[in-house]
Amino acid sequence: MKFAKIPLATINRLSIYLRNLDELLANGIDVISSERLAKQCGVNPAQIRKDLAYFGEFGVRGVGYRVKDLITQIRDILGLNRRWNLALFGVGNLGSALVRHGNFMKHGYQFVAAFDVDPKKIGKRLASGLAIEHVDRFEEIVKERQVDIGVIAVPPGSAQGVANQLILAGINGILNFSPVQIQVPDCCRVENVDFSIKLDNLAYHISSSAT
Amino acid sequence: MKFAKIPLATINRLSIYLRNLDELLANGIDVISSERLAKQCGVNPAQIRKDLAYFGEFGVRGVGYRVKDLITQIRDILGLNRRWNLALFGVGNLGSALVRHGNFMKHGYQFVAAFDVDPKKIGKRLASGLAIEHVDRFEEIVKERQVDIGVIAVPPGSAQGVANQLILAGINGILNFSPVQIQVPDCCRVENVDFSIKLDNLAYHISSSAT
Repeated sequence: MKFAKIPLATINRLSIYLRNLDELLANGIDVISSERLAKQCGVNPAQIRKDLAYFGEFGVRGVGYRVKDLITQIRDILGLNRRWNLALFGVGNLGSALVRHGNFMKHGYQFVAAFDVDPKKIGKRLASGLAIEHVDRFEEIVKERQVDIGVIAVPPGSAQGVANQLILAGINGILNFSPVQIQVPDCCRVENVDFSIKLDNLAYHISSSAT
Repeated sequence: MKFAKIPLATINRLSIYLRNLDELLANGIDVISSERLAKQCGVNPAQIRKDLAYFGEFGVRGVGYRVKDLITQIRDILGLNRRWNLALFGVGNLGSALVRHGNFMKHGYQFVAAFDVDPKKIGKRLASGLAIEHVDRFEEIVKERQVDIGVIAVPPGSAQGVANQLILAGINGILNFSPVQIQVPDCCRVENVDFSIKLDNLAYHISSSAT
């Protein structure tokens, strides 16, 4: 599905709406008003209506949203009506925890490959059953297993190199856990997860609000 | 140190500048132009100058920034001229990987407590030597060990409860890895790390740019 240019913040919020709708459905709720959904998501009702309006008409006036339908619709918008294959680069503490993290699977993301360079790790299996491969086999495996997104959890000095390989292999989505800025061409999108930057925000907030 | 209201994006970028300056220093670079620093950080030079201008005068015209001095100054601004004590809630796969994650320590953040509710885990020690405590001992331990920031890695259904306890204990900074929106009073700041939202962004980008 293709839409006009949508603000990134809207896409972020759609994910949050989806997470909350999934929870509502699991709790047996079939219909929800935009007010109640907004409250649960920590936004105002006008925001939800505005975000959804980019994509069409949703909900029934005076009734609200049918939870199951809205889930399907948001999944369609975000491109989540299919499975997404992830490849992990760097099977350290963080990397292995990510593979075991149930939250990925639940949302349609699945690790189909894990790469490292440490000879002691190659051939071993992760808790999920996935065998750790040498990064030398990257090109072949990425094609074979139809990897969509690369997850980078290597040491900072190796992150750009891994990203370059991913780009050459035609992979346009990177989730980067390495604390460096990765340079990519416009066709590729990088999402950074840097815990320490988030902690710096908290430290600044606490320091600057202390009197 | 207290400053006028600074945009959150500026605080985020200061963290990124700091990470890059640390790397420059480690590589033996003493002085850097704002152009070169900007390139390394993936921003434009005017942005760096604008961000720093909120806090005073930095750098020497025609020379650039002295790396070591700028590190000290940014650390002062962010409140990183001290150690920050973290408490982990939820010692699952992700939680234990976080405690072992070297990147926290490097930036002055240290886990001083780890809590869980699983009787099988209580009393066991993490790789760092830290013993896992029952969350019932929370209040006493948080005071004793001077916890500054709570790191929430519990299942979604328990996250708000943990946050409530943190707020009651006077903790004003929360790093939340649980995929739910936590409600907190204005004095408290929550930074969310939700990998699956980042993946949704990538999925949307890849889907909507495919022709």
